[in-house]
Amino acid sequence: MTKRTLNPLETFENPSPKRDYTIQHSAPEFTSRCPMTGQPDFGTVIIEYVPDRLCVELKSLKFYLQAFREEGIFYETLTNRILDELVAVLSPRGMQVRTEWTPRGGIHSTITAEYEKP
Amino acid sequence: MTKRTLNPLETFENPSPKRDYTIQHSAPEFTSRCPMTGQPDFGTVIIEYVPDRLCVELKSLKFYLQAFREEGIFYETLTNRILDELVAVLSPRGMQVRTEWTPRGGIHSTITAEYEKP
Amino acid sequence: MTKRTLNPLETFENPSPKRDYTIQHSAPEFTSRCPMTGQPDFGTVIIEYVPDRLCVELKSLKFYLQAFREEGIFYETLTNRILDELVAVLSPRGMQVRTEWTPRGGIHSTITAEYEKP
Amino acid sequence: MTKRTLNPLETFENPSPKRDYTIQHSAPEFTSRCPMTGQPDFGTVIIEYVPDRLCVELKSLKFYLQAFREEGIFYETLTNRILDELVAVLSPRGMQVRTEWTPRGGIHSTITAEYEKP
Amino acid sequence: MTKRTLNPLETFENPSPKRDYTIQHSAPEFTSRCPMTGQPDFGTVIIEYVPDRLCVELKSLKFYLQAFREEGIFYETLTNRILDELVAVLSPRGMQVRTEWTPRGGIHSTITAEYEKP
Amino acid sequence: MTKRTLNPLETFENPSPKRDYTIQHSAPEFTSRCPMTGQPDFGTVIIEYVPDRLCVELKSLKFYLQAFREEGIFYETLTNRILDELVAVLSPRGMQVRTEWTPRGGIHSTITAEYEKP
Amino acid sequence: MTKRTLNPLETFENPSPKRDYTIQHSAPEFTSRCPMTGQPDFGTVIIEYVPDRLCVELKSLKFYLQAFREEGIFYETLTNRILDELVAVLSPRGMQVRTEWTPRGGIHSTITAEYEKP
Amino acid sequence: MTKRTLNPLETFENPSPKRDYTIQHSAPEFTSRCPMTGQPDFGTVIIEYVPDRLCVELKSLKFYLQAFREEGIFYETLTNRILDELVAVLSPRGMQVRTEWTPRGGIHSTITAEYEKP
Amino acid sequence: MTKRTLNPLETFENPSPKRDYTIQHSAPEFTSRCPMTGQPDFGTVIIEYVPDRLCVELKSLKFYLQAFREEGIFYETLTNRILDELVAVLSPRGMQVRTEWTPRGGIHSTITAEYEKP
Amino acid sequence: MTKRTLNPLETFENPSPKRDYTIQHSAPEFTSRCPMTGQPDFGTVIIEYVPDRLCVELKSLKFYLQAFREEGIFYETLTNRILDELVAVLSPRGMQVRTEWTPRGGIHSTITAEYEKP
Repeated sequence: MTKRTLNPLETFENPSPKRDYTIQHSAPEFTSRCPMTGQPDFGTVIIEYVPDRLCVELKSLKFYLQAFREEGIFYETLTNRILDELVAVLSPRGMQVRTEWTPRGGIHSTITAEYEKP
Repeated sequence: MTKRTLNPLETFENPSPKRDYTIQHSAPEFTSRCPMTGQPDFGTVIIEYVPDRLCVELKSLKFYLQAFREEGIFYETLTNRILDELVAVLSPRGMQVRTEWTPRGGIHSTITAEYEKP
Repeated sequence: MTKRTLNPLETFENPSPKRDYTIQHSAPEFTSRCPMTGQPDFGTVIIEYVPDRLCVELKSLKFYLQAFREEGIFYETLTNRILDELVAVLSPRGMQVRTEWTPRGGIHSTITAEYEKP
Repeated sequence: MTKRTLNPLETFENPSPKRDYTIQHSAPEFTSRCPMTGQPDFGTVIIEYVPDRLCVELKSLKFYLQAFREEGIFYETLTNRILDELVAVLSPRGMQVRTEWTPRGGIHSTITAEYEKP
Repeated sequence: MTKRTLNPLETFENPSPKRDYTIQHSAPEFTSRCPMTGQPDFGTVIIEYVPDRLCVELKSLKFYLQAFREEGIFYETLTNRILDELVAVLSPRGMQVRTEWTPRGGIHSTITAEYEKP
Repeated sequence: MTKRTLNPLETFENPSPKRDYTIQHSAPEFTSRCPMTGQPDFGTVIIEYVPDRLCVELKSLKFYLQAFREEGIFYETLTNRILDELVAVLSPRGMQVRTEWTPRGGIHSTITAEYEKP
Repeated sequence: MTKRTLNPLETFENPSPKRDYTIQHSAPEFTSRCPMTGQPDFGTVIIEYVPDRLCVELKSLKFYLQAFREEGIFYETLTNRILDELVAVLSPRGMQVRTEWTPRGGIHSTITAEYEKP
Repeated sequence: MTKRTLNPLETFENPSPKRDYTIQHSAPEFTSRCPMTGQPDFGTVIIEYVPDRLCVELKSLKFYLQAFREEGIFYETLTNRILDELVAVLSPRGMQVRTEWTPRGGIHSTITAEYEKP
Repeated sequence: MTKRTLNPLETFENPSPKRDYTIQHSAPEFTSRCPMTGQPDFGTVIIEYVPDRLCVELKSLKFYLQAFREEGIFYETLTNRILDELVAVLSPRGMQVRTEWTPRGGIHSTITAEYEKP
Repeated sequence: MTKRTLNPLETFENPSPKRDYTIQHSAPEFTSRCPMTGQPDFGTVIIEYVPDRLCVELKSLKFYLQAFREEGIFYETLTNRILDELVAVLSPRGMQVRTEWTPRGGIHSTITAEYEKP
């Protein structure tokens, strides 16, 4: 397993900063690796946020998610890390990250983490 | 890419102005263009509002939405602009505009913006 | 276009007037006419209410809805009129009327109106 | 039409009486008769409750529901009667009975009644 | 029917203990036995929780659920027991266990129990 | 269990006897009884035929199928009997009868029998 | 019940007469009347054909189908009549007409008739 | 892993031996064990046959399928064995056995074997 | 309405020319214009072919289909033209083009044309 | 992009070599890379075959498919290569390989190749 190359998330200015509104990006083509066995994991990453000053640019988000392809990482860690890293870059008014995984050992897992601006 | 021709939104009088009730128009045949690449975007525009004095006439709404066909515009900008322009014309008691897009780079996006009369 | 023949809505006594409970009747075989073009419209009428002293009899409800077959009427007007006429007959504790329409000009419309006993 | 033979509902002791939790039994193979025409009605009966001291035994519930097979009864009356009779036997902390019916005259009906322990 | 062999549930440290977030594991390949007839029961077990210091390890959860394969147990007892045993091991901030069963005698059952940290 | 009252199947003249065409009637509200246990069975009866001189009248078909309500009869016997009785009345150019049943003991059954005019 | 006003079906020249290819038009907004009771019937009319020299123009097809709105007519007669009238106008290489109806008395009907050029 | 207790399949006489017709029994509540790892497998067994003199009795079929619960057996072997054993008992005119399995290692398997009377 | 800019379809060599195999490309984001009214049409274009020496390159196919965006063209003409132009470029062993359209005037249309190498 | 490590496909003896029967393995968790852009591709690989002397072992098939993870390869080449390599190892009586891909540039592709033993 190799280290993830850092992909800088690019942003653009929120065109309607006066209004609270919601942006959702859903990426059903996500894959990473199990940190125990090295086996590939497959899932969907759903990011929903209320932008403040910045919106995430779609293409850089695609590359950011692709960078986990060879990363060995637990579902729970991954979900919280994506939330932390996107919050750090976008400083949104609120954000939810949800990951839904194809079954392993007959069990389907879904992890949901949220951030709200204090 | 050409400029959008302005299509005047036509209205008719709300037949039940004493009652708060909800009108939803969903347009799954929407297309505009990506402002970066000029490539066509395809999506569904869902408009839901509580009318005050005026309702939007369906045929003029169709032409209004068609006028974005050659417009290069971000998902986020488009959603807020449709909300702003409809609010300006209808002055509704409340309105939500939601746009759902076919995948680009494997990512499905949905933008939701709301207005409430002060 | 001809005028609608009035169909008296028949009622029966609420068998459990002490309890607030909900009755929903959904009629997917509804048709009326567009008041502008005379063209047929097709939709589903969903009536949900909390009865007070009276319940609406199902067969008379069917005939009541059929009487709109040749009526030229806007979606918004129809929805509110059905609500008003059923409230007048049943005097329910609460009622919602929702009409969902097949697409016209590529646009699907849904209208929802509610009444609550003061 | 014959009279319904009374089927005693059997119960067993709630294995976790300290905790509020929910039990749902859904019976899509329900049939009774229309009290006006004698014609068979077909529907689904959904019973959801928070047990107090007693739970309903599944097999006796099946026989209880089968006993309506030749009963002529309105949707509204049936729903409230099942709720009343189950409440009388189980004395639950709360209960909802919902009946969903196949279409008659093109109209689908759903009745929902609830009980909460005072 | 044989006794269930105890499968120790293994845990790992919550990677984000400062944040309340939700983990759901859904196991559609669950089977146990009816305590009355010994006949096999089939269902789905859905576990959702907000971790405190510990998360349940997925493979040990699979073995834990498999250990009910020859156990004769009521739906209601099973649901509450899984909740109790997982709460004892994980001491979560909150947890819900939901079991959904294939029909028996034409009746589908669903049991839902919740725990919240005092 | 009582005996089935014979319901005479009514017919009308085929309006297009020169052409081979197909008529399908599907009745999802069918119920009979298990001949072993007397327990109710629920299923869908699908009749498809190429008429010769006669078509079956829909209302009499409904009553014909309702007459099995208290009949104790195996799936296989029922399917073949409906086929035999309809062939006797209609003398069609071809006919298929298919019965699809809700699960018993976790098993879904479907029986399909065909007749072709010699 | 009134007589149907004849709507002339308009045609245009087949743009590819050298090739056998298939055109399907499906009209889910069809309504006529039961010839026995005068009650409205609702269904879907599906027309599929291999054109020879002529194709049917879509708007005139819409008006043609609307003209059955007040016609009292059996399912079987209607299906064969639409086939006969379209064959008379288009003289296609082959055609199938299929009508699928909402349930009456709990029974769903589907009629399918075909024509092949001798 | 224990040995499978033999469950004698019971039969009854085909009520329509003069006609070739089809009986399908689908059992979605099937479980056996992987012969390599001893882990439980879950699947659906679909049996379809044209009876000759004998039909399989449904309850004995249920017990027959349950007897594989602790058997360690490959998908391919199981499918062929069920086909062989049912053919030996029923001597049908034809039979197909199909097994569809929940995913293992992210792969869904389906095995289909057929027998035709010489 | 403007003229369509010609987009050269690019090809690459069939990697397995010895074997007959099938390639399907389905494009649900297609739009053109009605030649009568100039109104936008929306549909799905499905191309399936058995390559001979050449395969169509996916990106050039996307641009080729986009070039119809402002073209006024009948469904039937469009379907046959796409088939003709692709056959001219690829000279495949066989090809089918199918276009499925969103409803106009309540009618859904589907056109299917095929080519087989002589 | 790295080279694919060769994963030896393991086999076991066909338990029923006298009978022609079908084995299908469907792997929805497949990923490789576009040979032009290096971007990840996601799809489902469906393998169906009639075994002769050998069956493919499921776990080695999983590893075989995973080995394409970093391979840059066209859809058409990949499909034919999987077919060729499996035929070389298993020498089946017949085999079909089908790959279904998530959309790229709004276009969904499906490739299907077959082999039959001479």
